[in-house]
Amino acid sequence: MFSTLRINTATREVKKETHSSKEYLLGGRTLSSRLVSREVPADCEPLGRKNSLFFCNGAMSGTTVSSSDRISIGGKSPLTGGIKESNAGGIVGTRMAQQGLRCITLEDAPPRNASWQVVVIGKDNVEFINGEFLAGKGVYEKSELLSEKFSPKAGCITIGPAAEKLLLTSGIACSDPHGVCSRYAGRGGLGAVMASKKVIAIVIKNDGEVKPEYVDPDGFKEGSKKIIKLLRENPVSSQFTKYGTAAMVDICQALKVLPTRNFTHGVMEGAEKINAQTMYDTIKERGGEGLTQHACMHPCAIQCSNVYPDKDGKLLCSPVEYETMALMGSNLCLKNLDTIATMNRIANDAGVDTLDCGAAIGVAMEAGLAEFGDNEAAVQMMEEIRNLTPLGRILASGCKVAAQVLGVRHAPHVLGQGVPAYEPRGSKGMAMTYLSSPMGADHTFGFTLRDEEDPTSKEGKVALSKKFQVIGSRMDAMGMCNFVRYSVRDDMTPLLDLIKARFGVVISDKEFDDMVKETLKLEHQFNSDAGIPAHAHRFTESFYEESQPETGEKVDITDEETAQAMQW
Amino acid sequence: MFSTLRINTATREVKKETHSSKEYLLGGRTLSSRLVSREVPADCEPLGRKNSLFFCNGAMSGTTVSSSDRISIGGKSPLTGGIKESNAGGIVGTRMAQQGLRCITLEDAPPRNASWQVVVIGKDNVEFINGEFLAGKGVYEKSELLSEKFSPKAGCITIGPAAEKLLLTSGIACSDPHGVCSRYAGRGGLGAVMASKKVIAIVIKNDGEVKPEYVDPDGFKEGSKKIIKLLRENPVSSQFTKYGTAAMVDICQALKVLPTRNFTHGVMEGAEKINAQTMYDTIKERGGEGLTQHACMHPCAIQCSNVYPDKDGKLLCSPVEYETMALMGSNLCLKNLDTIATMNRIANDAGVDTLDCGAAIGVAMEAGLAEFGDNEAAVQMMEEIRNLTPLGRILASGCKVAAQVLGVRHAPHVLGQGVPAYEPRGSKGMAMTYLSSPMGADHTFGFTLRDEEDPTSKEGKVALSKKFQVIGSRMDAMGMCNFVRYSVRDDMTPLLDLIKARFGVVISDKEFDDMVKETLKLEHQFNSDAGIPAHAHRFTESFYEESQPETGEKVDITDEETAQAMQW
Repeated sequence: MFSTLRINTATREVKKETHSSKEYLLGGRTLSSRLVSREVPADCEPLGRKNSLFFCNGAMSGTTVSSSDRISIGGKSPLTGGIKESNAGGIVGTRMAQQGLRCITLEDAPPRNASWQVVVIGKDNVEFINGEFLAGKGVYEKSELLSEKFSPKAGCITIGPAAEKLLLTSGIACSDPHGVCSRYAGRGGLGAVMASKKVIAIVIKNDGEVKPEYVDPDGFKEGSKKIIKLLRENPVSSQFTKYGTAAMVDICQALKVLPTRNFTHGVMEGAEKINAQTMYDTIKERGGEGLTQHACMHPCAIQCSNVYPDKDGKLLCSPVEYETMALMGSNLCLKNLDTIATMNRIANDAGVDTLDCGAAIGVAMEAGLAEFGDNEAAVQMMEEIRNLTPLGRILASGCKVAAQVLGVRHAPHVLGQGVPAYEPRGSKGMAMTYLSSPMGADHTFGFTLRDEEDPTSKEGKVALSKKFQVIGSRMDAMGMCNFVRYSVRDDMTPLLDLIKARFGVVISDKEFDDMVKETLKLEHQFNSDAGIPAHAHRFTESFYEESQPETGEKVDITDEETAQAMQW
Repeated sequence: MFSTLRINTATREVKKETHSSKEYLLGGRTLSSRLVSREVPADCEPLGRKNSLFFCNGAMSGTTVSSSDRISIGGKSPLTGGIKESNAGGIVGTRMAQQGLRCITLEDAPPRNASWQVVVIGKDNVEFINGEFLAGKGVYEKSELLSEKFSPKAGCITIGPAAEKLLLTSGIACSDPHGVCSRYAGRGGLGAVMASKKVIAIVIKNDGEVKPEYVDPDGFKEGSKKIIKLLRENPVSSQFTKYGTAAMVDICQALKVLPTRNFTHGVMEGAEKINAQTMYDTIKERGGEGLTQHACMHPCAIQCSNVYPDKDGKLLCSPVEYETMALMGSNLCLKNLDTIATMNRIANDAGVDTLDCGAAIGVAMEAGLAEFGDNEAAVQMMEEIRNLTPLGRILASGCKVAAQVLGVRHAPHVLGQGVPAYEPRGSKGMAMTYLSSPMGADHTFGFTLRDEEDPTSKEGKVALSKKFQVIGSRMDAMGMCNFVRYSVRDDMTPLLDLIKARFGVVISDKEFDDMVKETLKLEHQFNSDAGIPAHAHRFTESFYEESQPETGEKVDITDEETAQAMQW
């Protein structure tokens, strides 16, 4: 049996429900998207009373399985106007499991001028405490205040000052193993949804006593070891262990899909200044608190995270990941890792998504508000976000709104969500994935890039994107880290065996994939009911009219092809 | 035969076409909306190459019929994402007629970095001249430069600095009889569409030699006199002659629908400080260039326009109209006509719509950026628009975008267009009209307020709104001023007789209304094809959840009722 804590933020009524269906067993996006689809009226205002927010851990939460403890946060997105699942690492999933929880639901909303609340979940009760002591503070300070008040071991979920102002790129921050809320469910503006309910933090106390039970403990132990072995042997995930996701800089530069100069180019001269080796060397050289390898959750055999230190070896930002290095680096023609890490830190403190804000700054630079390559100006723009100035609010509204307000037509987004770190004209597989995602442009959704024979051709890319949509979504579907997918992409048995050993429930490959596809179907249906037309699944017209100089390519994917890639 | 000048702004190709159908005969919105519907792909980007802009004068353009010389400007709106017809007074319609033109079309768009162009239309040719001398200048200065270069008698169409930056509330300014581009097709952001084509002005020279011809000159003369008589005898239009539209302040205050404090109230204490009598007395007292009565076009028997002078009797703004007095006055709790006129002047100079910017400032005040009632802060916000600062750009993006960026949920708009000066909770007829307009919230579309027995009840309001949708749209349909409608609302014969006398073409009441209804149908169809879902025709949820204090009313109109009011 899996428990849901249903919290009405207007009446403060708290109800506990239990469920035993397979969607609750799997948790993750399987559950969050079904709950959104079922309980949120598709045509409601994302920041209104009718939206709900669902926090779901996954099938292996609380166990010793590597990389299995992400939480999926679901709701209607104020950024895209559609359904959203955004997931994060950290320790919240584990703390939920220790409280015997699969899902926490925030419903309804108090009046506009209600004061901030913290929802504190412990083994004995759920309390609402006044949250005004956190108001207006950055996420780092919020983390400290929460750690002091509730212990660094509590699982904390909080939002930044940007979310408090309902800004569209604001994420939800979850505590890492050190008690710092630095693990972001960053995309889609779910932080603003949480803020609209006047909940400034959720604390899951470390007093939970529920231990995982196993139908077949030995089988489970063995299966768990197998996952570690698979992860260590896999060439992709093991590369991430050494270099983190920064390894993608060189790969993308070589493939001419490194977003550069507000997505007008796919190659940046001097990209080696921000590549994985430079980052690795910098961290090693500076020493101190720097770590080239770091786990966002325990246990994890990949440890793709890092701790990037400043010149004195003090923690500047953790983690600094490829997507941020591209969107806040090459996309702005910045060639300085310290600048990128500083921007990333400010984004984390303000509580905004680094991709969407990086894309917005690119648009602002195109509008002439600063020069591309100007490190100081870029950091200053992040400070504007942190300080919630008018310009900061424009940038923290994401690149679609920024482009509207700043009068820029070349805006890298689909459904309002900023395009991730792979130039779509240079990779038609990624373009297809961005276009057909129910979440707006999203790279984790169907990551084709490593498997495209000819990235610039659209031939076969409907099928390829769909293949990887399933492969990627399988991980979200049960709360696993997306990087596990490389080890199980051709054979899900190791994970399905773990489910069997833990719960005694047999889910076949086919049944599992059917559930994954059903999730996609429900998500697309929600968006359609929300009034998102098929032709919103396009890039701005500039991507179809202007060639990317390095490849000579435009986006040439038709609405019909996109529709095929959305058909399940 | 009616001529269209088809101008390709990318290739600079100019073609002249002639047509003889009744849609060209009527011109106005009948023509502009048909052309948009036929030639603009509904799903295109409003600021992209595929949008076109149509300038259509009307059936009586160039004749001596009172109030008959408005031009309808049509295109896809960047503000609403739907079809737009926005019309303006002034002398452009006449100049077009004198050049033998019914329609000017701007098609396609040059590359993003092309320089500004002025399109100069004379009797012998169409020229493109470099328009950089106008770039960045306010509309008043642009007017002077255009007058100097081409004579104050030329018919000029220009845009402000806000439009040059593609801002969503930027209008298109047309010259008045004094050579000042102060007559605005203000709504829907068509100024940005013109800017996207890199056309900073269109000049229709005063060398046109086409004179109106009449099948029945005596009948026409007589019919024309009859219109003047009707206008002078009509109680509503004759009231406008004395007081202008400002007469609405007291009416709306009495009906509790005067937008106050970001549309949270419908009554403003001290409203008499900005009412018609105060305005009339102020203008009379100050003398100088002030005029309580003024014609935006010749001839006009209504003369609802005015010239509002500053303390020294110098022209401050012309005209100052009720909608602006409410949106930039009571809506911001401002009780000072000088402040309102100053804001209005800055808006005209920046080239933005006063309603949409007033609504956006209301949202900004609700967000806490300034206090309601702070005259200086309100003027400062307009200066921010004029100076194109980040805050100014937010405000000039209209209240929907401003609300997104500033984190405000109570935003008075439908389809992104700001709600005009009648609180919808206090007048269910106006609410119905706002909701069911294909243009976004629009008061000229179906002005029920004077004919609602019980404004707070929604009973019968579908039918009432539809009745006035037709009555209002008839005027747009042939380029007449909307205020003529009071004189012909029960009997269109006087206008149809003029058509017959001029062209020898008989259009029956029924045929005319069928064409009006067909226009509405086409407009709704365009919006539907553009992906605007039925449920976009709603106010923000706050209008349904929170009562207006003075009437105790919420918006209670259902989607079904709105759909009925959109059914033709």
